[in-house]
Amino acid sequence: MENLLSLKTLTNDEIIYLVNRALELKKGAKPANLDACVANLFFEPSTRTHYSFIRAEQKLGLEVLDFNPSGSSLKKGETLNDTVKLFQSLGADVLVIRHEEDRYYEKLIDNINIPIINAGDGKGDHPTQSLLDIVTIYESFNRLEGLKCVIYGDLSHSRVANTNIDIFNKLGIKVETVSPPGFEYNESTTNDLSEAIIDADIVMGLRIQHERHSEHFTYTQEDYVTKFGLDENRLKLLKPECIIMHPAPVNRGWEMIDAAVDGPKSRIFQQMANGVYVRMAVLERSLVK
Amino acid sequence: MENLLSLKTLTNDEIIYLVNRALELKKGAKPANLDACVANLFFEPSTRTHYSFIRAEQKLGLEVLDFNPSGSSLKKGETLNDTVKLFQSLGADVLVIRHEEDRYYEKLIDNINIPIINAGDGKGDHPTQSLLDIVTIYESFNRLEGLKCVIYGDLSHSRVANTNIDIFNKLGIKVETVSPPGFEYNESTTNDLSEAIIDADIVMGLRIQHERHSEHFTYTQEDYVTKFGLDENRLKLLKPECIIMHPAPVNRGWEMIDAAVDGPKSRIFQQMANGVYVRMAVLERSLVK
Amino acid sequence: MENLLSLKTLTNDEIIYLVNRALELKKGAKPANLDACVANLFFEPSTRTHYSFIRAEQKLGLEVLDFNPSGSSLKKGETLNDTVKLFQSLGADVLVIRHEEDRYYEKLIDNINIPIINAGDGKGDHPTQSLLDIVTIYESFNRLEGLKCVIYGDLSHSRVANTNIDIFNKLGIKVETVSPPGFEYNESTTNDLSEAIIDADIVMGLRIQHERHSEHFTYTQEDYVTKFGLDENRLKLLKPECIIMHPAPVNRGWEMIDAAVDGPKSRIFQQMANGVYVRMAVLERSLVK
Repeated sequence: MENLLSLKTLTNDEIIYLVNRALELKKGAKPANLDACVANLFFEPSTRTHYSFIRAEQKLGLEVLDFNPSGSSLKKGETLNDTVKLFQSLGADVLVIRHEEDRYYEKLIDNINIPIINAGDGKGDHPTQSLLDIVTIYESFNRLEGLKCVIYGDLSHSRVANTNIDIFNKLGIKVETVSPPGFEYNESTTNDLSEAIIDADIVMGLRIQHERHSEHFTYTQEDYVTKFGLDENRLKLLKPECIIMHPAPVNRGWEMIDAAVDGPKSRIFQQMANGVYVRMAVLERSLVK
Repeated sequence: MENLLSLKTLTNDEIIYLVNRALELKKGAKPANLDACVANLFFEPSTRTHYSFIRAEQKLGLEVLDFNPSGSSLKKGETLNDTVKLFQSLGADVLVIRHEEDRYYEKLIDNINIPIINAGDGKGDHPTQSLLDIVTIYESFNRLEGLKCVIYGDLSHSRVANTNIDIFNKLGIKVETVSPPGFEYNESTTNDLSEAIIDADIVMGLRIQHERHSEHFTYTQEDYVTKFGLDENRLKLLKPECIIMHPAPVNRGWEMIDAAVDGPKSRIFQQMANGVYVRMAVLERSLVK
Repeated sequence: MENLLSLKTLTNDEIIYLVNRALELKKGAKPANLDACVANLFFEPSTRTHYSFIRAEQKLGLEVLDFNPSGSSLKKGETLNDTVKLFQSLGADVLVIRHEEDRYYEKLIDNINIPIINAGDGKGDHPTQSLLDIVTIYESFNRLEGLKCVIYGDLSHSRVANTNIDIFNKLGIKVETVSPPGFEYNESTTNDLSEAIIDADIVMGLRIQHERHSEHFTYTQEDYVTKFGLDENRLKLLKPECIIMHPAPVNRGWEMIDAAVDGPKSRIFQQMANGVYVRMAVLERSLVK
């Protein structure tokens, strides 16, 4: 029974296995013959991750219980633990869970006997997002070791930053972080994006989260993209082979301009496509006996 | 790659092909063997059209990504364009879209390489509704040419009126429009329903939309149906072979009385049944290579 | 065409047939080969019942139209009757309906020609819940006749109490009811849980509904469970073979403590599992010609 709670507990070999399996599935490898039921429990809104899992489940031929917490017994105060036990009782063989609480899964794993795939916990991990990022990088460069990745933007609340920085380093990708002042990841985060991207192989933007709507966030769009985003000038600084990534949805014109999102360096829509194959690989891993 | 954005750009032959195909499918013809994925993106509430598409997709054996915009990244401000590109990236082969903006599709079609089926745009078109109306008329009369159709009710905000009036005329059905004062379609709209329906083959009621709840709409139900609806007296004026249609949901007692909705002249529930076959035909057209 | 509106109109033989069929299906019997479409219309929130039906429908290979009333034409004022006729027109072969109105089905059954399975009506019946309770009891004791069941808690608003008390008696299970003062089922309801449970074979807790949040409900949790719930002391009073049931979700710590919900006497999660097989049996009954 294989949970996938965080990439941090996986070995490099286990990660590379999943990356390779996703790429095989993308090239048309036949998925394992699974006769199983999956329950998706998304307690936080999500389009991309949620529908990517649904698509992966369809392609694996799984039976899907897609739980929509609004209009449900949660209003009657049912706990996460009892909701999870309900879906196990209904016959689910694996659970895909997104929840706003950090490490929500810790209090669940001893109460159930089916695996959990973490689709994002609070400010914690988002392992399938990291995997699809790695798959996308590998597809472009055919290697990971020795690459340089700049992750920039609002790093302070990011699940993606939190997982990727550790894992990329572990896999030999050198990570530099850049943010606007006040949104740093740690003490090594700098504030000068232009300098950082000059020799980057990968430039990964992160979404401005809630701050944009707060009174303390005083940047205009023009201001923000010019100082901290991929604008026309910074696009010209990139190496020819450099790729642009973003977990999406992009605030177009803030983290980067349209020419970055839709241009030839962009891998943003390819990331979405790869997400389906990554989730197929992860579901297979949890379901194959 | 065949979009279906508006019937107005189709030839009569193309329309008649779809009508015939829907009738064949209704009689049990085997649908094309499609191995495809459809994404339904309904940005406006809809029961009838939405579930009719879902049923059609089931009968075609399609894999369905049914997007529910509430509780999604739209709250994070994702644009329609990026949502559409997401579902293309996830593997959708065709998109079924309803959106409140007139001609929303114009800014999309150049950005994606899969077809769009328009399930209703603002006050613009509703091509599958028009097709199911035509199928229902053809089923009753075995012809279209030379019939007279009275479309009556609130014509000023109606997507159905907008599409049907043009298309019916093009196909040889003579259309007369009748409305309460202030809700006219154009200068040829009259206000006397009794006079118009006497020689009609088809009487099609349209739903009172938002006005009913506005302060300027001062009619009582009794008042409205007596002056502008199919009440008992007007039902007696209809020719024996005349049929009654309505895109539904009917405001029972306003546009028409129960005896009209549920009586032998009514084709209202048959319209709903035909909608499934029309949508199968339209999906087939977009998906067959 | 077999409706399932209330167990009260079924004979004991018909009930026992469904119980046996559910147990057969649980043991792996092949379900009937149904090629049919079911529409689930849940007008009230429900997790357990709703997903249990969905799981049953999956296991039967049915095509499912799962209607979500929020974001639908109901906002346009469509009546229950017209919604039901819509889904019949779309091709549904059976309807599963939950609605907040007592005996909502009475005004529907003459207007449609497909069966209705009642998934709960107001304070009325909840026939599939009663059936799964009976299946669970039968699984534990291999008989029904002569058992004693104590149903306790908030009996005044309970659909479950309403159905179970009658049916259990009819099947030879002796029922005693216990409630806090003011929440009685009828004049034979007592207020002393300790006394009632001493010789019980089954102790079934019912959920505190809305009262907990009303100003007239002045109990604290500690208070409530000590006076009217399964607390540690009362657990010790139970016979060794006694089982604990609850329709769930449990207000943990109110109706009963965790040790009751999760302990060896609990059949609460088994009830959920059995619900799937009961609903398969009920759907089969309505769909087999």
